[in-house]
Amino acid sequence: MRLVDLIRKKRDGRELSAGEIEFVVRGYTAGQLPDYQISAWLMAVLLKGMTRSETAALTQAMLHSGEVLQWNDLPQKKVDKHSTGGVGDKTSLILAPVVAAGGLLVPMISGRGLGHTGGTLDKLESIPGFNVNLSADEMRKVLAACGSCMIGQTASIVPADKKMYALRDVTGTVESPALICASIMSKKLAEGIDALVLDVKVGSGAFMKVEADAAHLAQLMVETGEQMGKKVVALLTDMDQPLGRAVGNALEVIECIDVLRGGGPEDLFELTLELSAWMFYLGERTKTVQEGRELATTLIADGVAYRKFGEMVRLQGGDERVLDNIGLLPTATHRMDVNSSGSGYVSQVDCEKIGVASLVLGGGRSTKDDVIDPAVGVMVHKKVGDEVAVDEPLCTLYYNRSEQIEEARALIQSSYTMSAAPLLKSNALIHRIIEHAGAGTAVT
Amino acid sequence: MRLVDLIRKKRDGRELSAGEIEFVVRGYTAGQLPDYQISAWLMAVLLKGMTRSETAALTQAMLHSGEVLQWNDLPQKKVDKHSTGGVGDKTSLILAPVVAAGGLLVPMISGRGLGHTGGTLDKLESIPGFNVNLSADEMRKVLAACGSCMIGQTASIVPADKKMYALRDVTGTVESPALICASIMSKKLAEGIDALVLDVKVGSGAFMKVEADAAHLAQLMVETGEQMGKKVVALLTDMDQPLGRAVGNALEVIECIDVLRGGGPEDLFELTLELSAWMFYLGERTKTVQEGRELATTLIADGVAYRKFGEMVRLQGGDERVLDNIGLLPTATHRMDVNSSGSGYVSQVDCEKIGVASLVLGGGRSTKDDVIDPAVGVMVHKKVGDEVAVDEPLCTLYYNRSEQIEEARALIQSSYTMSAAPLLKSNALIHRIIEHAGAGTAVT
Repeated sequence: MRLVDLIRKKRDGRELSAGEIEFVVRGYTAGQLPDYQISAWLMAVLLKGMTRSETAALTQAMLHSGEVLQWNDLPQKKVDKHSTGGVGDKTSLILAPVVAAGGLLVPMISGRGLGHTGGTLDKLESIPGFNVNLSADEMRKVLAACGSCMIGQTASIVPADKKMYALRDVTGTVESPALICASIMSKKLAEGIDALVLDVKVGSGAFMKVEADAAHLAQLMVETGEQMGKKVVALLTDMDQPLGRAVGNALEVIECIDVLRGGGPEDLFELTLELSAWMFYLGERTKTVQEGRELATTLIADGVAYRKFGEMVRLQGGDERVLDNIGLLPTATHRMDVNSSGSGYVSQVDCEKIGVASLVLGGGRSTKDDVIDPAVGVMVHKKVGDEVAVDEPLCTLYYNRSEQIEEARALIQSSYTMSAAPLLKSNALIHRIIEHAGAGTAVT
Repeated sequence: MRLVDLIRKKRDGRELSAGEIEFVVRGYTAGQLPDYQISAWLMAVLLKGMTRSETAALTQAMLHSGEVLQWNDLPQKKVDKHSTGGVGDKTSLILAPVVAAGGLLVPMISGRGLGHTGGTLDKLESIPGFNVNLSADEMRKVLAACGSCMIGQTASIVPADKKMYALRDVTGTVESPALICASIMSKKLAEGIDALVLDVKVGSGAFMKVEADAAHLAQLMVETGEQMGKKVVALLTDMDQPLGRAVGNALEVIECIDVLRGGGPEDLFELTLELSAWMFYLGERTKTVQEGRELATTLIADGVAYRKFGEMVRLQGGDERVLDNIGLLPTATHRMDVNSSGSGYVSQVDCEKIGVASLVLGGGRSTKDDVIDPAVGVMVHKKVGDEVAVDEPLCTLYYNRSEQIEEARALIQSSYTMSAAPLLKSNALIHRIIEHAGAGTAVT
């Protein structure tokens, strides 16, 4: 088998066999196939698409390019959630302890933030001492002890994706539903889980701005997961404005603690409840999603989830006293309100700009090597539908260095659109739920 | 400017500016842009196409990636011909001396054979002593002395194409009209010519099997040349069977000498006349193509072109006595007739198979590093329309080593299709002449 022939086959729009796809993934991971051929192949895949079978074969080949975690010694069902990324999207930190408190196992491997989106690992690391770099053995101990563990990617899990993603990033081959699906699903299935809830974000702060694109990817991931024998559901959720009010790492941890204490913003609480409910349902802990909602509500109301979070923080080396004393978290030295120049009702928010505002203050990364400042970020006071008076604060910026403050302020101000009249209806938080995929052979 | 943005722009089907294309070509030639990004860009170009303006900009950028020859001290018009490659296609060796004998300058830079197609340089090198590796200065001396010179690519001419073609070859990005056009036209225009006649081959022995593809490429090259201020015409000519009767290097030189002596196969003579006529016309040596035909006919009939060929052979270090004594050319030690198993009329020839038969006997290259045997090849006795009796020879194989003889024999036999009745009409030698290109903005 020669790679050039497989490039030509895909270029000409023909379907690759599972064996051919495995040849590509295996050879590339082993360093036997050069970058310059793989990048041409990736571009052909992006422009010509992959069938559902090809996507499943790619996911399978990537999954088996490295270690697949096994938790056979732990009897509980293993479940996880994955989000495609957004602004202020912090549900993982809440739902992991909720679902673990409910008796399921959550072996979560997360990523870091890049560009305008935040990353779960960065949020966790704002807790002093919290260690996301655990080995599989260390992870097993934490899981056995408290039911949830949140770590970063290790070198042994899906090495094909690490290599391929780095290449895609510099060759314009990121935006392919098949490649995105295989990248996400291989990494999630390598966690050794039984069920997966996908939170596919759509809107101005999401990777996918258009609902049809998000729905397409969601369907593809659900079907790919099912083809691989896993229970998968995808929720298409709103990212037309930040989730909750906090954007920035330590600020988001504080908001999560609020929710675990029974407070916090309603949208964040609602979405976390819904995602947890599906995890309970797919993990066969409850008979219905509704029962799952009730269980999650109770676990938060009774403080069980709150204590579970503290336990996980402690087991992963973090200072669990932050739960009762948020002053122990990194705190920005300065604050500045960004006030409204007009009055009316917020009709729209350019959510990505708010993410970028937090980024330029130091809360995110422009490149993978940037060091982030956990203390900085944005607190959002006005959300879509809210009434605003002249000079009323839209957001508050939290910052340590003043160089970028003007840029961040301008971003926030330009992100708000006002209307004179109240909005007739608000955007639904959950747009759609995709439980089963569509036709089996459509080209993606 | 970042290459990844240009990859994405082309991937999304948008038009690149001349500056952006120059950035790619210049950076790649200078070794500042990595293969893996260029191959993704090439695949995007192949699948999304280039506009006429982009193709012209690419040609221009490649042309100026290296040296452009200048012949300002030589007053004659400079003309050349380029063929897209075929089997038994040897017109260059005849028309260069014809056109030089007519008073124009032919500074021809040719290629070598690869796969089933032959190469002008390999044919010339079957003449003992003939040196195709001349410097620009040596070429100038030969041109000044006899009006034509035939050499190989030098490192200083269009270095971008050398690098890019090697990458295209292994990344499935050869078959793009825009990339083919830029590759051919940049190299030809680097010869410092005023006019160019393109012989675009179509048929079973050609690179392009389908006439529409050949016509598309021809139009693109004509328009690109015109945009760069050159006179260009393209002749779409038949490659559904070998041109002439000889396939193989020394065998083809002998056939060229026959034509220059006023003999040789009619199709070869006719096509050479037509191509020479267009060179005389575009080079403003004659007022019409018809006058050009008459001039070429006279130059051959009077033996002037024949003597001119001898002069060029001598000036390039070759043994010019071969013109009068073909026994001085390399001769194969064995011959074998391939006879017809049936009888009837030749209705079709798989021309590529005849090229491959010569290749497997040692007359061509499977890879760029193969060493060829100049003596071997195939003499074609039966062409389309010819009547054939049982056991009559279809071809004769000329060979030195018998290992591949069975394979060559089988190729020849399977290449012939017979019909019981005579053909109603024969294939035209010249399918179409493209003098001016079509609409200016169509995407290629």
